[in-house]
Amino acid sequence: MTQHVDFWFEFGSTYSYPAALRIEALAASRQVAVRWRPFLLGPIFGDQGWNDSPFNIYAAKGRYMWRDLERICAAQGLPFRRPSQFPRNGLLAARVACRHAEKPWLPDFVRAVYRANFEEDVDIASAQVVSRCLAASAEDPASLIEEAQSPEAKALLRQQTEEATRLGIFGAPTFVVSRELFWGNDRLEDALSWAVA
Amino acid sequence: MTQHVDFWFEFGSTYSYPAALRIEALAASRQVAVRWRPFLLGPIFGDQGWNDSPFNIYAAKGRYMWRDLERICAAQGLPFRRPSQFPRNGLLAARVACRHAEKPWLPDFVRAVYRANFEEDVDIASAQVVSRCLAASAEDPASLIEEAQSPEAKALLRQQTEEATRLGIFGAPTFVVSRELFWGNDRLEDALSWAVA
Repeated sequence: MTQHVDFWFEFGSTYSYPAALRIEALAASRQVAVRWRPFLLGPIFGDQGWNDSPFNIYAAKGRYMWRDLERICAAQGLPFRRPSQFPRNGLLAARVACRHAEKPWLPDFVRAVYRANFEEDVDIASAQVVSRCLAASAEDPASLIEEAQSPEAKALLRQQTEEATRLGIFGAPTFVVSRELFWGNDRLEDALSWAVA
Repeated sequence: MTQHVDFWFEFGSTYSYPAALRIEALAASRQVAVRWRPFLLGPIFGDQGWNDSPFNIYAAKGRYMWRDLERICAAQGLPFRRPSQFPRNGLLAARVACRHAEKPWLPDFVRAVYRANFEEDVDIASAQVVSRCLAASAEDPASLIEEAQSPEAKALLRQQTEEATRLGIFGAPTFVVSRELFWGNDRLEDALSWAVA
């Protein structure tokens, strides 16, 4: 595959859940390779003056999002349980994913973390949960988690979040195809069409 | 047609432009009737603490929106010129549209106002422009404009905006099908599918 799409996602982000679960198969069917780009929304929201998810700050928008996500997951045949805590802290999982973005086990790990958050309603901030999400596909989860807390791993995710800001990303999921941004799960098809155009 | 979709739109709203231009034909092709529901975003944004469009307040979001709108209009074969003033004040046009929502000339008038704003880049706040938008389809624009400034016409639009708030609407365009909200031009197809399901 010569075409690719950069998939910018945040583990706490609701609409990133259906996107993360469907992107690999859909992109493959169009001969587009996926580059997995985890980042953190916290610093980007902070720059906009928000210290919480806009879905918590703006009540009508939040109510709409939860109902909309329920409909989208139903249409996609995706189990969904509204997390008892929102947004959850995906920092550790993002550090692991950022450092190992090219590993063959990475897509399985990403999907496992989203399922933990939005299907199983467990706390993805915990090392135990991240370890379980790794266990199904990666070897030696304990080392991966330890290594994710190194200064290098922390710096890597920080740089990636800064790159997101430079690209003009303001929410998740965002798909980027040769500097064209497509924001939102419902724009994945448009991004893939752009990639093969 | 027994099925219908409520189309909530604001004349200053960017994504309402492609929606307004395509909804009638698309809905008719699915045997869905459109109910045209103009409202004002100003009071709703005000309740969220914004005294301007979020596309002006949040720069990255605004930059994305203008590029995205350009792509959408190109894909839809719709002329587009970025308005030299944004957002424009659609109060007078909305008062006219609200009072005459069921008239046969209404859809033509709505499209003419959007074209004035996003294709011709003229000030839709002016009575002269609104009059010209009416002239192509309605009789006696001068009377319609005078009447739109009556206390009754003002109250009607105020009530409709309050209804939007009660329904949980927080942005435009929003499509409503039996209390299900679909927010954004790119969700029109989903709304129509819901209407015929």
